[in-house]
Amino acid sequence: LSSYDGPIRATLFPGDGIGPEISQSVKQVFSTAEVPIEWEEHYVGDTVDPRTQSFLTWESLESVRRNGVGLKGPMATPIGKGHRSLNLTLRKELGLYANVRPCYSLPGYKTRYDDVNLVTIRENTEGEYSGLEHQVVKGVVESLKIITRQASLRVAEYAFLYAKTHGRQRVSAIHKANIMRLSDGLFLKCCREVAEKYPEITYEEVIIDNCCMMLVKNPTLFDCLVMPNLYGDIISDLCAGLIGGLGLTPSINIGEGGIALAEAVHGSAPDIAGKNLANPTALLLSAVEMLRHLKLFDKAEQIHGAVLKTIAEGKYRTGDLGGSASTTEFTKAVCDNL
Amino acid sequence: LSSYDGPIRATLFPGDGIGPEISQSVKQVFSTAEVPIEWEEHYVGDTVDPRTQSFLTWESLESVRRNGVGLKGPMATPIGKGHRSLNLTLRKELGLYANVRPCYSLPGYKTRYDDVNLVTIRENTEGEYSGLEHQVVKGVVESLKIITRQASLRVAEYAFLYAKTHGRQRVSAIHKANIMRLSDGLFLKCCREVAEKYPEITYEEVIIDNCCMMLVKNPTLFDCLVMPNLYGDIISDLCAGLIGGLGLTPSINIGEGGIALAEAVHGSAPDIAGKNLANPTALLLSAVEMLRHLKLFDKAEQIHGAVLKTIAEGKYRTGDLGGSASTTEFTKAVCDNL
Ligand SMILES: CC(C)[C@H](C(=O)O)[C@@H](O)C(=O)O
Ligand SMILES: CC(C)[C@H](C(=O)O)[C@@H](O)C(=O)O
Repeated sequence: LSSYDGPIRATLFPGDGIGPEISQSVKQVFSTAEVPIEWEEHYVGDTVDPRTQSFLTWESLESVRRNGVGLKGPMATPIGKGHRSLNLTLRKELGLYANVRPCYSLPGYKTRYDDVNLVTIRENTEGEYSGLEHQVVKGVVESLKIITRQASLRVAEYAFLYAKTHGRQRVSAIHKANIMRLSDGLFLKCCREVAEKYPEITYEEVIIDNCCMMLVKNPTLFDCLVMPNLYGDIISDLCAGLIGGLGLTPSINIGEGGIALAEAVHGSAPDIAGKNLANPTALLLSAVEMLRHLKLFDKAEQIHGAVLKTIAEGKYRTGDLGGSASTTEFTKAVCDNL
Repeated sequence: LSSYDGPIRATLFPGDGIGPEISQSVKQVFSTAEVPIEWEEHYVGDTVDPRTQSFLTWESLESVRRNGVGLKGPMATPIGKGHRSLNLTLRKELGLYANVRPCYSLPGYKTRYDDVNLVTIRENTEGEYSGLEHQVVKGVVESLKIITRQASLRVAEYAFLYAKTHGRQRVSAIHKANIMRLSDGLFLKCCREVAEKYPEITYEEVIIDNCCMMLVKNPTLFDCLVMPNLYGDIISDLCAGLIGGLGLTPSINIGEGGIALAEAVHGSAPDIAGKNLANPTALLLSAVEMLRHLKLFDKAEQIHGAVLKTIAEGKYRTGDLGGSASTTEFTKAVCDNL
């Protein structure tokens, strides 16, 4: 208990582009809601830190490791300079093995779909993201997809535990084991093993192509989806599209030992950066996921409710949602709704 | 010219489950429309033909090779017996390198999307479908994705030629080259090379996750999409979902030397097989693609028009579209609308 006596320290990566503005919005909402969190801010460096082989500083990674929890705005990786992607570096260095993206329709914000309420849980460390590629002979390239029992079990365990603790009834494992019999087959085998320990949760397996078709026809068929890295990348964005896009969807990455990094997964939108036009919703909702992870449920629900209410009221919406509110106007409205 | 004097011979694989019924529908519509085609019917065998290593007979493949053109109903591959998938065997043995799926909203059949009008062109022979997988050590599996310059150029050439000859303005290459820099990078390089030869066609590159999000938000942004095998598998089904499902979308596979195999890509629906309940639309529209491929444009448009009109009228719709018409009633209505 004593470790919770003072405020909780959390790392904040404001990120690039619109990142600092939307981070400012989160800080303001948190302070208005009197969330007992003290931010440790870290920016992406402008030179490569040899210890991380990227523009991420070693200190910033140490900060997340020490605090066990962080929040991250969008980070644009400088292209074509041979540096490791900042997002991938974070996943790798912090061992963030599961990417969790709750995806739900926002009341009052109309898309083609109502009542979407699902969560995608993506294996975040291997699969097609191994980085193992080579040219066999000129004009013939091989990329290796790696699936391991260890990583598959780990994410399956997380998915079922998540489903159970979040009142979800069903876990669907998404795969293409009819083609990749061994690799996706191993992934499924691990999911089945874990499923046996959760008789109260319905387990099913859905082939990825069919899953995408079902998602666009009727997303309410799904509840909790777990899948290898690339399928998770694709399906989580597809799902975000159903409810309005990446500007509205929270994301949190989970690592070994309970480390967690929540993040807005949208881009850094350099075209509108610094203009007070950005929508802070995805980062705010990601911050809510961080609070839930910290079991600060009261604060989480309070902020979640205020964000949803502000969007539902429709008076203060940013440009991406068809409104004309500035980032600060929207933020103030959220604070007023707390 | 002399080779077109008699009727054109085409191979017909009625397939399993509902396959024979929907094939019967195509035969009836073709004969009512007086399409100058003579069918050579081939069924999937009940023993493995050692020359094809699958239940497909050597004679049936020879028939497609000789005729240069065929139509195929759904084929269910017996599971778990270690036999090659029938669909994959056909692609491989016939060198069907491009899978073309036009996807358009059917007038009068309402989904969440209006005005979808795009075509997906999928590389059909390599990528994640290489079949090269192995267990490195216990609990660690490797699957190889193979991308070659030859296959990528070939499908890119086909896509641009298709776009040009079908009045399409834009080709989007779908990829994940930000992660698979070498393999998807090679695919993009080939697309760029071909794009240079078609200055009248706009060329763009879209990352697959973003593409899926854009497709569910606003599919009218897309025109002609070309992509490696697995992305094509996923995206073509997603697109089918937008307009109502695989029961409504045509598909045609193109091979070297102009060989073409049109196919309904939905399943064999064993639960309703033999009950006169199946919807023959996907096979009829695939047959229309076959006629277009044969440059029998008059007959193609006549049948296409009759199918669309029957669906638009709404009086005779099969159960999958919310109606109660039988396969034969729907077929008769199409014939009456010819
Ligand atoms: C930016 C990119 C490397 C990343 C990914 O592919 O994982 C992104 O699409 C995501 O989903 O976080
Ligand atoms: C049945 C299966 C092997 C096939 C594929 O994955 O290509 C199917 O999904 C398709 O799109 O034709």
